[in-house]
Amino acid sequence: MISKSQIKLITSLQQNKNRNKTGLFVAEGPKIIKDLLKAGLQLHSLFSSTSFNASGDIRSDELSGFSDNMILVSQIKLQKISALKTANTMLAVFHIPKKKEISQNGLQLALDGVRDPGNLGTIIRLCDWFGVTHLICSQDTVDCYNSKVVQATMGSIARVTISYVDLEAHFQHTDLPIYVAVMDGESIYEETLPEEAILVMGNEANGISPNLTSLIQKKITIPNFRKKDTAESLNVATAVGILLSEFRRNGS
Amino acid sequence: MISKSQIKLITSLQQNKNRNKTGLFVAEGPKIIKDLLKAGLQLHSLFSSTSFNASGDIRSDELSGFSDNMILVSQIKLQKISALKTANTMLAVFHIPKKKEISQNGLQLALDGVRDPGNLGTIIRLCDWFGVTHLICSQDTVDCYNSKVVQATMGSIARVTISYVDLEAHFQHTDLPIYVAVMDGESIYEETLPEEAILVMGNEANGISPNLTSLIQKKITIPNFRKKDTAESLNVATAVGILLSEFRRNGS
Repeated sequence: MISKSQIKLITSLQQNKNRNKTGLFVAEGPKIIKDLLKAGLQLHSLFSSTSFNASGDIRSDELSGFSDNMILVSQIKLQKISALKTANTMLAVFHIPKKKEISQNGLQLALDGVRDPGNLGTIIRLCDWFGVTHLICSQDTVDCYNSKVVQATMGSIARVTISYVDLEAHFQHTDLPIYVAVMDGESIYEETLPEEAILVMGNEANGISPNLTSLIQKKITIPNFRKKDTAESLNVATAVGILLSEFRRNGS
Repeated sequence: MISKSQIKLITSLQQNKNRNKTGLFVAEGPKIIKDLLKAGLQLHSLFSSTSFNASGDIRSDELSGFSDNMILVSQIKLQKISALKTANTMLAVFHIPKKKEISQNGLQLALDGVRDPGNLGTIIRLCDWFGVTHLICSQDTVDCYNSKVVQATMGSIARVTISYVDLEAHFQHTDLPIYVAVMDGESIYEETLPEEAILVMGNEANGISPNLTSLIQKKITIPNFRKKDTAESLNVATAVGILLSEFRRNGS
């Protein structure tokens, strides 16, 4: 049985302010829930329309003592608390992990004002693939615990360290070289990119904030191979994929 | 004024079978409509909630004699015929362009069973950016004139040549080397990729069709930089971006 107050709590977590207030977020589907548990995130509550043995998706030992608190609900109730058009068989509430200090080494990705949840989700998946040490987001970037973001990461959100900070202050206190992707930079094919750096991506419409430009050492660009009447820009997530691959190819 | 039969025709075009029957498709928003007109596509009808002079988005001379047939409608009527949650100020019906023969040179991209409209739209945008000669889709790839695909291309659909064919037959009759992206191929960072080739991408869940494997010369892979507990795959559109960039970097 799921109580009225539980339903109210879970649906309230679709809003950023309620996630901030409670320190909780929602993940849906056995695959993502399993990945989050494996990464050591603290489970708050778990709702399922199938028993674990029946579903086979999560073994009870993977729940490390939590399975007693697992609540069986009907698929109709699950749809009621789900943020998805069609609910999965499982929904979990997790505690948002504690903030981690940003290290001063490795390859970091900084996002300045990326608003689209699907793009942020895809970018988190790319950070996971390319072993990005830390994903640093400006305060006006979409919240990574937004349910659309969580689902689009396909579980990668469990493995990527993400912080929301004042980018200007962060850039002022780093020793890493800072690169930005723009339309009029140096071709990535002619530049040898370092293994340790911060790569900054602005949003597609406005680029990066003016207060950051003086803090950036190097402008780079993905060359366009159709000179006339071409696409004006690439989607920010696909551009991140191409650039992270370029940063990694030299160290591989 | 928009007639009942016009409303019926336009909403019917949300289905693939009706697009095939009529040879028509819908594009929404002045930006995409302008790009399609510029690329020489034949306009069937145009509906707008603002006059051209008022909107400033399309100048009347860009409509080359068609402006007489432009129909002014209310925003409410536009919402009624729109496939978007929130309609733009303009909706156009275009004739699907005639099939073009697939040339035997350049860089071609072949998609085998890509089903997600957003992914196909992003891939078309990438083909535009990287100057892909021809995008070749298997018959079970989502239709590129699906409204979600058209919108996701951001106008690039006007500039990319796309064909739906039997991939097996096409691969049997080409002289181009055929590359496929898989999990266990040669690292793209260690391989010198040719300027002229066919790159094949399967769908994320099932890879490529078994009948194609014997026709492929080379398997390539995007290396994964987090060896443990990592993302199992990249989104197909981001993988296409990274791979097209790799094919182009050697010729740049």
